[in-house]
Amino acid sequence: MGFDTLQDEDKRYIRSIVSPERFSTGESNLDLHSRDMSGHRASRPEAVVWPKESAEVSRILGYADQRRIPVTAWGAGTSLEGNPIPLHGGIVLDFTQMDSILEIRQDDFQADVEPGVIYKDLNHKLRHTGLFFPPDPGAGATIGGMIANNASGIRTVRYGSTKDNVLRLVVVLANGEIIEIGNRASKTSSGFDLLHLFVGSEGMLGIVVEATLRLVGLPAEIASAVATFQTVEDAGKAVFAIIRAGLDPAALELLAPECIDLINRQKNLGLHISPTLFMEFHGPTRNHLMEVMGIAEGLCREHACREFRPGLDREERDRLLEARYALGDMIRQDHPDHFRIAIDVAVPISAYPEMIAFAGETARKAGAGAAYTFGHAGDGNIHLVVETERGNRDAWQRIKEANRSVVHKALALKGTATGEHGVGIGKAQFMEAEHGRSLEWMKKVKQLLDPHAILNPGKMFP
Amino acid sequence: MGFDTLQDEDKRYIRSIVSPERFSTGESNLDLHSRDMSGHRASRPEAVVWPKESAEVSRILGYADQRRIPVTAWGAGTSLEGNPIPLHGGIVLDFTQMDSILEIRQDDFQADVEPGVIYKDLNHKLRHTGLFFPPDPGAGATIGGMIANNASGIRTVRYGSTKDNVLRLVVVLANGEIIEIGNRASKTSSGFDLLHLFVGSEGMLGIVVEATLRLVGLPAEIASAVATFQTVEDAGKAVFAIIRAGLDPAALELLAPECIDLINRQKNLGLHISPTLFMEFHGPTRNHLMEVMGIAEGLCREHACREFRPGLDREERDRLLEARYALGDMIRQDHPDHFRIAIDVAVPISAYPEMIAFAGETARKAGAGAAYTFGHAGDGNIHLVVETERGNRDAWQRIKEANRSVVHKALALKGTATGEHGVGIGKAQFMEAEHGRSLEWMKKVKQLLDPHAILNPGKMFP
Repeated sequence: MGFDTLQDEDKRYIRSIVSPERFSTGESNLDLHSRDMSGHRASRPEAVVWPKESAEVSRILGYADQRRIPVTAWGAGTSLEGNPIPLHGGIVLDFTQMDSILEIRQDDFQADVEPGVIYKDLNHKLRHTGLFFPPDPGAGATIGGMIANNASGIRTVRYGSTKDNVLRLVVVLANGEIIEIGNRASKTSSGFDLLHLFVGSEGMLGIVVEATLRLVGLPAEIASAVATFQTVEDAGKAVFAIIRAGLDPAALELLAPECIDLINRQKNLGLHISPTLFMEFHGPTRNHLMEVMGIAEGLCREHACREFRPGLDREERDRLLEARYALGDMIRQDHPDHFRIAIDVAVPISAYPEMIAFAGETARKAGAGAAYTFGHAGDGNIHLVVETERGNRDAWQRIKEANRSVVHKALALKGTATGEHGVGIGKAQFMEAEHGRSLEWMKKVKQLLDPHAILNPGKMFP
Repeated sequence: MGFDTLQDEDKRYIRSIVSPERFSTGESNLDLHSRDMSGHRASRPEAVVWPKESAEVSRILGYADQRRIPVTAWGAGTSLEGNPIPLHGGIVLDFTQMDSILEIRQDDFQADVEPGVIYKDLNHKLRHTGLFFPPDPGAGATIGGMIANNASGIRTVRYGSTKDNVLRLVVVLANGEIIEIGNRASKTSSGFDLLHLFVGSEGMLGIVVEATLRLVGLPAEIASAVATFQTVEDAGKAVFAIIRAGLDPAALELLAPECIDLINRQKNLGLHISPTLFMEFHGPTRNHLMEVMGIAEGLCREHACREFRPGLDREERDRLLEARYALGDMIRQDHPDHFRIAIDVAVPISAYPEMIAFAGETARKAGAGAAYTFGHAGDGNIHLVVETERGNRDAWQRIKEANRSVVHKALALKGTATGEHGVGIGKAQFMEAEHGRSLEWMKKVKQLLDPHAILNPGKMFP
């Protein structure tokens, strides 16, 4: 792509835009911004900048565009496909200091935030308003990162992904231009929808510097249950039955036995080591939720449910949810020396049992090492983390092959190569198979908005 | 824009693509495709074609693109801003014969349809499945038209607009290329979101020839109520209170007294001629809905509600809804000789009372003729139809000025120039004020996808 490397004069100029302490070429800062939470190979930027204002971002991009210097936006670094790894060096813009909650408009169920706001902090700040921002990616993600990847999570099955909960964006384009997209009305039919074009674009079309988020009222009542099954396939069939019955869960999570075992070991939860569904329902009254829970139990029992434990108290539920959130970390910490791939596909819900069975079988056949199956089952989303010890090249090849098989199976089932982790580095190889000719139009849109391809270069396109 | 007119050889060629009975240059067909349900000036196409297959659409567009012939897609002609009026002549593609429901996948809550399917027919076909397609524009719109305008309606306050309920599109681009966008998974983070770029693009970026729609389960219980108020402003405040309380209505419609009067005269409903809210709640149990209804009543009474009549039976509810749907037609039929403008703005819900008061005052000041205030209040959406007798140029100028005032007020309140009718002809003048610099990028996207500007030319951009 013919990028220039940062010259001393570039560094001087960029440092002059921000204050000196918000510019670094120090080794440890470069290292910290060379990898996310995926297993993708690290690649260091040449400088890290911590912007605090849109105007700074605008000036830096305008300069970088003229000088053909890559610029990659950085949130919390919790992504799982190498999405913000600066493959071609250049500048990383770390948004963690641009993290103000600008305004909470309770009456309109809206909040204006800067991109560096941490998802959990926002909901903590909102807790007394009776409102929350629902897309729940689990990790310590920033709002900017969530928008970049169209993040979703445990609550998406009921409340949608990030894209369903963003009303307005302020974006700095590659040339430094600042544009505002969308408005504060809850609906609009005005003009082409550029808003959704930027959500999920992984910082490749522009960099978000402000967002208006749609908030949701906290449920009056919450009920949750844990169900254990004979096989992962049975659990998958129960997931399909619960969705099919229109029970509208607010969480429907699958955990295969190896995940339960890990959780037990690390969190001392003493759960039964079986294929497990964790489910949560939000509703207006206790009675209604008990009724829903009764139906859910019936459907689970029809699929050889071993045990159905409803009515978890708040503490139990929080412990379980916390463990579910921490699962990715636990897997990493259990064998810090292993290589691993986190598979993340989604399929239509009727195909979920077949997808799970295929993924499990594929991992077994690869025979590479430990494999962990879990996922936001209610969305038809499955995660399969497969790992092997460092240095075992054969096993690594087999894992990569298993990943390819699982993704192609998801596409054959009319699903998607990535339910929520985004394309980044790892999924670029599947974009042609998934999007066909429309991939060419994605490239053209990229070329239109970022003609010198300075924004997060090397991602998404094979 | 330098379009060519249709030559005899063009007509021969296009007729050869479809069968002869699906090509017409007959006066009555040209007239039928020269106006929608708005008051915008009629403009006839030079030929009307009724395609039945994507391949036909592709061949026609490919040819028209080379020959610089305008092509405008046509659904049911029920739009309200002149959206499909062929301002520059050329070819109208009427999709009413490409109207198959291709597949209903109950298990996945999805349906694949062709663009000519009538919204009401789809839901009629779905009635035994326990599912429905929720964005409810009222009129006899086609799915293609709904996608083009990102249509919404009475149910949007709970179930979202068309854009929230489309998962996948097949689109023919201006050059004749056919691309498929999206997939059947309920969520995805794969690639740039071209899907939402096409939804709401009013046939100016490409023409939709197939769509996968997301369906929703029919509610277990429905409860509705009618509340009457002293003033429209009081009703507006009650709307805000109901939304603010998180009661999650499935319909929350405002009807000013002049609308009730008209409905009474035309449908013999004998309603009290007062500012009126019609509200509907969907829920899991009767008890829950009764509780919600009690809260709604309390909130209405706090805002000087004169009468609150809950527990409408199904017949009453259907009659009322039917009357609400037919309101636009009734207004037109009441004075078929009048000119009118249908204002359609949306604002954040906290600004709804102020917006209503301003709109009413503006219409009164214009003193032009009859004015009807109504709207999907729960979405912050207000419609104001102002009319005057044909030939009264002064009054007509005052009405146009009132329209401009109301739209600019909505924009000042951080809302939008069009909540659901789309931009078409009438709202193009406000696009710069609403979108600022991002309008330039909409133009660039148009230029990228339709370089010869043959698709529905003359719309959206001032």
